[in-house]
Amino acid sequence: MSSPIKSSPATLPPISPSLVAPGGTVGILGGGQLGRMLTLAAAELGLKTHIYTPESKSPAGQVANCVTEAGYEDPAALARFAEVVDVVTYEFENIPLQTTAFLQERVAIQPDPLALAVAQDRLTEKNFLQQNGIATAPFAAVSTDLSLSEAVERVGCPAVLKTRRLGYDGKGQRVIREVRQAPGAWDSLQKAPALLEAFIEFGCEISVIAARGQDGAIACYDIAQNIHANHILHQTRVPARVSEETAQAAINTATDIIVKLNYVGVMGIEMFADLPGPDAPNLLMVNEIAPRVHNSGHWTLDACPVSQFEQHMRAICGWPLGGTARAHNVVMTNLLGEEWRQWRSYAQDPNASLHLYGKKETRPGRKMGHVTELLPLDS
Amino acid sequence: MSSPIKSSPATLPPISPSLVAPGGTVGILGGGQLGRMLTLAAAELGLKTHIYTPESKSPAGQVANCVTEAGYEDPAALARFAEVVDVVTYEFENIPLQTTAFLQERVAIQPDPLALAVAQDRLTEKNFLQQNGIATAPFAAVSTDLSLSEAVERVGCPAVLKTRRLGYDGKGQRVIREVRQAPGAWDSLQKAPALLEAFIEFGCEISVIAARGQDGAIACYDIAQNIHANHILHQTRVPARVSEETAQAAINTATDIIVKLNYVGVMGIEMFADLPGPDAPNLLMVNEIAPRVHNSGHWTLDACPVSQFEQHMRAICGWPLGGTARAHNVVMTNLLGEEWRQWRSYAQDPNASLHLYGKKETRPGRKMGHVTELLPLDS
Repeated sequence: MSSPIKSSPATLPPISPSLVAPGGTVGILGGGQLGRMLTLAAAELGLKTHIYTPESKSPAGQVANCVTEAGYEDPAALARFAEVVDVVTYEFENIPLQTTAFLQERVAIQPDPLALAVAQDRLTEKNFLQQNGIATAPFAAVSTDLSLSEAVERVGCPAVLKTRRLGYDGKGQRVIREVRQAPGAWDSLQKAPALLEAFIEFGCEISVIAARGQDGAIACYDIAQNIHANHILHQTRVPARVSEETAQAAINTATDIIVKLNYVGVMGIEMFADLPGPDAPNLLMVNEIAPRVHNSGHWTLDACPVSQFEQHMRAICGWPLGGTARAHNVVMTNLLGEEWRQWRSYAQDPNASLHLYGKKETRPGRKMGHVTELLPLDS
Repeated sequence: MSSPIKSSPATLPPISPSLVAPGGTVGILGGGQLGRMLTLAAAELGLKTHIYTPESKSPAGQVANCVTEAGYEDPAALARFAEVVDVVTYEFENIPLQTTAFLQERVAIQPDPLALAVAQDRLTEKNFLQQNGIATAPFAAVSTDLSLSEAVERVGCPAVLKTRRLGYDGKGQRVIREVRQAPGAWDSLQKAPALLEAFIEFGCEISVIAARGQDGAIACYDIAQNIHANHILHQTRVPARVSEETAQAAINTATDIIVKLNYVGVMGIEMFADLPGPDAPNLLMVNEIAPRVHNSGHWTLDACPVSQFEQHMRAICGWPLGGTARAHNVVMTNLLGEEWRQWRSYAQDPNASLHLYGKKETRPGRKMGHVTELLPLDS
């Protein structure tokens, strides 16, 4: 998957329309909280869901019409799943591409797994962005001791060494402050194929939740500003404290990406940006693409006519996209690990909307729920 | 059940607190669209649901964690159900009282089935209201030919003859415009025990969606105005076009009722009122009590931090009540019978939120879904 993916609307196959009407069934690969919220949104539209997950009693499986608990490499289970659903989508980006290829011979998958291929490998992702003229942090591939030292020379220090695959929430990352730390950092990542990225001084991280319908219509929610703690999303605030120019540039960039991937569905795009100010250099760099609904879009459940979850369902089912107008300013806070046990105090706040994911086991840093504070638009 | 129920806070047993924490299971009697929306709301709070319904593949059962498909008179199934749930509630008012009595020996039921007893019988309901000083249309009981003619004499014409039990959406009702029509009207209702009500000239029908928590806290949503067509709710508009005095009086009346019944949960109270005007006589009469979430409160799903469905779950589980502030003016329209097939045009409206109930069979007048139009607060 390391070959660069270059694409433009001209060379892409047309979107194959697959209308799933109310009463139809959406198959979802993955059973986590994103699948759960997709399932609840589908139910509001009179759509059925069928969750495919290796996990027993998963958050999504608990509320879906149907569940297959089987591995992603189980052809018999996958074939049965493909037979009983009208369209397949996914709720996380590390679905094996063999799995989606196997399914794609049997049933429509949206978004096109091309987006998975791009997002699963940081090098493929960065190459895709670079070749489409979208700014990212300077980067270099690391696959041998020699390429590591070349990368450090090219990118400079400080930098962040990231494994190309399976990294999330800060896992598989090492900050390199001085050149001499590089070999040890890579050793500690088991010399996995990696990417060295320049460490960017940015004012804030923002994200765009963008949607594209089968008809090519595009709708973006208002730009969100993300605050991380220990490499995990802690809080999302909307509106983001960026200039109007930056916000518009972020929307344009997101639109560019979603069109270039011929994408159908909801996508989360994280970017580095500057806070507004006379000396602000108007930084805007794409950090990461998530080919799925995104944690930084959870606030849309409580502040918009149509949430990111419903929007994704509409898009992949060939429905018109829905309204994204925002009725509140919001602060969405993730409830990590034991924090959900404070549910009663969150439930007490008349301006808060509490969401819990039904996970059986509480683990440190695990996303157990979130709470959205609704504030006046002029706050 | 014809003996009048008189109650006041002083004579009522205290609310038995039953805290159901996230991860707990709420049993719901009934599997219709109200149960479905309760189930979806429960899932957002990390609560599980177990639907008990005689219906196969019911709207609620499709999305619940667990379903028992059995009759309301099946003691073995009821006993098993009571064992696996933490609290029982109901989504429609015609649950047999023997069923709730049987369950109540085994598990907490909220709201207290006292409210069912009141609401299941129009005479009990009217007596309860009258004895608590709450205005209703003049009425008289009809159980014999003699009582029919006495009732007509007392109530006058025009009047409406209604069966005491099992009437809904205009079923079991006959308008009597002249005295001589009375015997024929009663005949056509199979001489079922009935109630004759004076025909009230009212400006509008309004409803209050009121909630009471286990802690005694009360929260009412903004007054809604209901428009019926063929005796079925067609549209709910909020705010209602009544004077501030009428709105406040409606809230006071609803509060009175919910306290007098020592009620825990969400209740819908329909009232007749006048539109504002110099000559308006400030009419306010209670028409009907629904001891459950109510069709005229569906708009809260899209316009309030906490919907009536979540509010009901919070109340019966011993959670704090949530915020009821309204972020939009709304027009909620029921999709009856074949109307849901226009789903695509509703989905196209960026200010509309579409809800479909997953019902397998479309029948004339059947509630298949609803659509909520979100308008600016100052519209």
